Amino acid sequence: MKDISVTVVGGSGYTGGELLRILARHPQVGKLTATSRQHEGKKASSVHQNLLNVYDKEFKQMDEKSMDADFIFLATPHGESMTIAPGLLEKGVKVVDLSADYRFKDYKIYEKYYQKHASPELCKKAIYGLPEAYRKEIKKANLVANPGCYPTSVILGLLPLARIKKKLEMKKIVVDSLSGTSGAGAKPSEFAHHSEVDENLKVYNVAKHRHRPEMESIVGEQFGCDVKLSFTPTLAPIIRGIQSNIHVHGKLKENLMDSYKKFYGKEPFIRITETPYVKNVAHTNYCDMGVWTDENTSEIIVI
Amino acid sequence: MKDISVTVVGGSGYTGGELLRILARHPQVGKLTATSRQHEGKKASSVHQNLLNVYDKEFKQMDEKSMDADFIFLATPHGESMTIAPGLLEKGVKVVDLSADYRFKDYKIYEKYYQKHASPELCKKAIYGLPEAYRKEIKKANLVANPGCYPTSVILGLLPLARIKKKLEMKKIVVDSLSGTSGAGAKPSEFAHHSEVDENLKVYNVAKHRHRPEMESIVGEQFGCDVKLSFTPTLAPIIRGIQSNIHVHGKLKENLMDSYKKFYGKEPFIRITETPYVKNVAHTNYCDMGVWTDENTSEIIVI
Amino acid sequence: MKDISVTVVGGSGYTGGELLRILARHPQVGKLTATSRQHEGKKASSVHQNLLNVYDKEFKQMDEKSMDADFIFLATPHGESMTIAPGLLEKGVKVVDLSADYRFKDYKIYEKYYQKHASPELCKKAIYGLPEAYRKEIKKANLVANPGCYPTSVILGLLPLARIKKKLEMKKIVVDSLSGTSGAGAKPSEFAHHSEVDENLKVYNVAKHRHRPEMESIVGEQFGCDVKLSFTPTLAPIIRGIQSNIHVHGKLKENLMDSYKKFYGKEPFIRITETPYVKNVAHTNYCDMGVWTDENTSEIIVI
Amino acid sequence: MKDISVTVVGGSGYTGGELLRILARHPQVGKLTATSRQHEGKKASSVHQNLLNVYDKEFKQMDEKSMDADFIFLATPHGESMTIAPGLLEKGVKVVDLSADYRFKDYKIYEKYYQKHASPELCKKAIYGLPEAYRKEIKKANLVANPGCYPTSVILGLLPLARIKKKLEMKKIVVDSLSGTSGAGAKPSEFAHHSEVDENLKVYNVAKHRHRPEMESIVGEQFGCDVKLSFTPTLAPIIRGIQSNIHVHGKLKENLMDSYKKFYGKEPFIRITETPYVKNVAHTNYCDMGVWTDENTSEIIVI
Repeated sequence: MKDISVTVVGGSGYTGGELLRILARHPQVGKLTATSRQHEGKKASSVHQNLLNVYDKEFKQMDEKSMDADFIFLATPHGESMTIAPGLLEKGVKVVDLSADYRFKDYKIYEKYYQKHASPELCKKAIYGLPEAYRKEIKKANLVANPGCYPTSVILGLLPLARIKKKLEMKKIVVDSLSGTSGAGAKPSEFAHHSEVDENLKVYNVAKHRHRPEMESIVGEQFGCDVKLSFTPTLAPIIRGIQSNIHVHGKLKENLMDSYKKFYGKEPFIRITETPYVKNVAHTNYCDMGVWTDENTSEIIVI
Repeated sequence: MKDISVTVVGGSGYTGGELLRILARHPQVGKLTATSRQHEGKKASSVHQNLLNVYDKEFKQMDEKSMDADFIFLATPHGESMTIAPGLLEKGVKVVDLSADYRFKDYKIYEKYYQKHASPELCKKAIYGLPEAYRKEIKKANLVANPGCYPTSVILGLLPLARIKKKLEMKKIVVDSLSGTSGAGAKPSEFAHHSEVDENLKVYNVAKHRHRPEMESIVGEQFGCDVKLSFTPTLAPIIRGIQSNIHVHGKLKENLMDSYKKFYGKEPFIRITETPYVKNVAHTNYCDMGVWTDENTSEIIVI
Repeated sequence: MKDISVTVVGGSGYTGGELLRILARHPQVGKLTATSRQHEGKKASSVHQNLLNVYDKEFKQMDEKSMDADFIFLATPHGESMTIAPGLLEKGVKVVDLSADYRFKDYKIYEKYYQKHASPELCKKAIYGLPEAYRKEIKKANLVANPGCYPTSVILGLLPLARIKKKLEMKKIVVDSLSGTSGAGAKPSEFAHHSEVDENLKVYNVAKHRHRPEMESIVGEQFGCDVKLSFTPTLAPIIRGIQSNIHVHGKLKENLMDSYKKFYGKEPFIRITETPYVKNVAHTNYCDMGVWTDENTSEIIVI
Repeated sequence: MKDISVTVVGGSGYTGGELLRILARHPQVGKLTATSRQHEGKKASSVHQNLLNVYDKEFKQMDEKSMDADFIFLATPHGESMTIAPGLLEKGVKVVDLSADYRFKDYKIYEKYYQKHASPELCKKAIYGLPEAYRKEIKKANLVANPGCYPTSVILGLLPLARIKKKLEMKKIVVDSLSGTSGAGAKPSEFAHHSEVDENLKVYNVAKHRHRPEMESIVGEQFGCDVKLSFTPTLAPIIRGIQSNIHVHGKLKENLMDSYKKFYGKEPFIRITETPYVKNVAHTNYCDMGVWTDENTSEIIVI
């Protein structure tokens, strides 16, 4: 039954566009609304041309009417979500926030890496929206904080190692990640200008990207131990997809490919494979991963 | 002898950067200066990173000192060059303008497609900077108007047909062109945003691109007849290079590949080939071209 | 009800892989089989890695058992389909052929551009699998000949002009097309080698591609008149998608964008738009198109 | 003076093509010959189209005449060079080998990772062709073994750390590298097929690429200590360029960017920069690098 009403706040960015594409065809979603400050009054399909004949409604402004929904997705920038969510929650709306605003249980970490928090009391109540780690909690949650792009790839890759954490050097993890340019958003920038990205690889924010503390805090919570990692992201000339190379030192003999398969056996969107290529997961919900051990340096490599 | 002093006005764009790369290693160029309003005081190699250790001087402002040179290249936007050139010419400087400001002998055509002209009297004196057509005149010129990107490809492709123009329908020429994104310049835009360009082909300005009158007027002058063409440009997911497919109807038996080879025999930068691919000319001065006849529709196809 | 059994012959190529991806999730398809000479015995998902957990069955050989199906798709090379189809049709199987073998009602045209035909008597009975032109016939057909990639784009672009064909020069149509590399198939070749294609544009088979007669014969049949066109294909550095620039000379005043919208009004997969970009249709069933008139050369341009 | 005669053996691959492009314009090279088994008799510029009008001679077979040169470059596959080099050296020719055959002073390491060696006695005499490490020796060498692509990037990145090796965990180095597809050579393969590479990232040979022992042995020799590293290569959708992320654990306070600048101060082709992007070095001789310290995990990161 198509009886759930949904609103996407900030529908003109790339995450907003993808939400609309998925929700417009969702079997349970009825009324679907999208807001946009920048494009209010324009057809959504004039901004996201791929939505032509799929979702042609106009972008609304954020008001009582557009905010009257069962579910609201906040595809808003960091710093905005935290001013919008409290009011919605009070009205009983279920909120999924795609910004970083509620990803940290400890709002002080957020404030260290982002900015002063406007609704710190909600941080503890928000559930980190990674079903493979928090499925039960998500089902009951009123406020879901969706994971960052890089953290999704790194946390999923590390989760199956919780069991053997004592054999591993959890404070010296090395992560090198590659991202497509859609992660940089729809707003034009020199960083993501075609002539600057194509035929290029652009390493950036070396040792200072703010997704690093997000990875450390969630993995730390899941593993019940201190976690430290170095994180080096590189922009690759692709649109969609992330590849993370995760290196954990430790002595280990077992065939990890098999234990990863077992760990994720019932997960519909995780696939364990020798060929974890972004091409096979782009445009899908899948996360493909493989795991290897390097005896030369006593190390686990998860891709 | 490195005794020629050169200044590049507007050195921070892509054309400015390429000029600096070439001039910095030119055997006859001595003092080399670059100006930039936006980046004044910054090292040129901090803006054009490929110039590190090649040309590290700071961008200057446009003043008496920086304008004291034998040659000045104006890598300025349309509409600016026409206010700068007159003063320089009066001082006896030789000027090469990369904008469209002096490409039309008849300033009224310029005004129709661009804007009001600030120094229309210079238009007749400017020489169109295509050596294959105006080599002698360029050598003696004080003001050279460098060709647009698309016009370069189309004019060079048509020139050898002047001899047989009477057999050809010169008022129904069809041109479909493909361009890399560097042609759109260094300034970030949605048009040339990587996520919008990659894995995409973007046709634009159908039947209304202002390079069309430029092609028509130069070919018309060279051929001594009226020329009309339709021009459809498409942005392709490459950085450098243009491919133009030029279709001219007319009855013709001869092997044009040979007559093209003969026509361009002494030109150092024109190569006639069955495989005129942008890859073979990008990063070089070459223009590669091939020519075919299609008996099915009585048509010449120049690529 | 999932009660239709389907077999894909030649399941290891790109068309085979796409068929499997679509059919594996098709609500009416039950038993789904794929054959492959080259990869017999291997899991389909080891060849098409994106099918992991989607379609993991092994490729079969072509025998009685694998050929026992309601529908059989022949994703086989030109020249093979025509030896397989006759036997299947005799058994009462419905056949969809993706090769060129049955695309020409007149087998002599096929023989001129391809090779001697092994079952010429079937050519007249085969229905050209373009629903926008032959929907009724396809529903009743036993043998459907699916269109070539370039012809699909060109025929769909021309169909709405049938009504005004007398105003148009139908024997001087100019078509410049761009194709992604998936059209060249899964078999490695220098033509589609990454280092040769990336940052490149490769014009090929100028004035001699065999999709040209296919376009001419279908458009001729639909329009009821002689049609001649020149066809120039170029390989672009994208994987999926085709852009065709179609130029038809003729005098015309009306707003064609509107008449195209009207013509295709009920078609679910045709969208009329000012921005007919491959990015908006890749990975979908859509064909987006726009139409312009160029008064300068009295010409219609369909993209 | 153009008085040095040079022959390139195996001129039809990508390394052969680049050598010809450079040598054809080299101020000291006179007679330039190229051999190719596969393309003997064809013009070099019909295989390497970018060489049209630059180097148009025909490929020769390998015989007395073509081997009569001052310098011979062996752009031959691993396993072939070691059968050709001995005879040339006896005749007094200077040989530069681009294969892996002479990169290991200890031929047993070669035999472990490659194959039985046909001229093991030459291994000790060969000089590793990395001028930044072996400039003096190269000048006097008769047999130069040019470095592998990945090892070049990793060795250059590590060299400046020799001085402080004792503070570093040299047996737990982590290297994640990205390579363009030209590194896979000119021979078509599924691995480097455009539709498989574009919009994709392909990790391969995890923990078992044979460039790893090459890096370890050269760095070990230069540092005078045991070196172990894990090496994970990924194929990126670019043609030219390699990015290597090198992680070395160790406690360190100093500003390494400055000491890297000092170390490489006189090297013409090394540039130290905050933006070590492949785009800035592709099509040049440059290797750009940057170095950072991550206090969070006590680690040096060289890109």
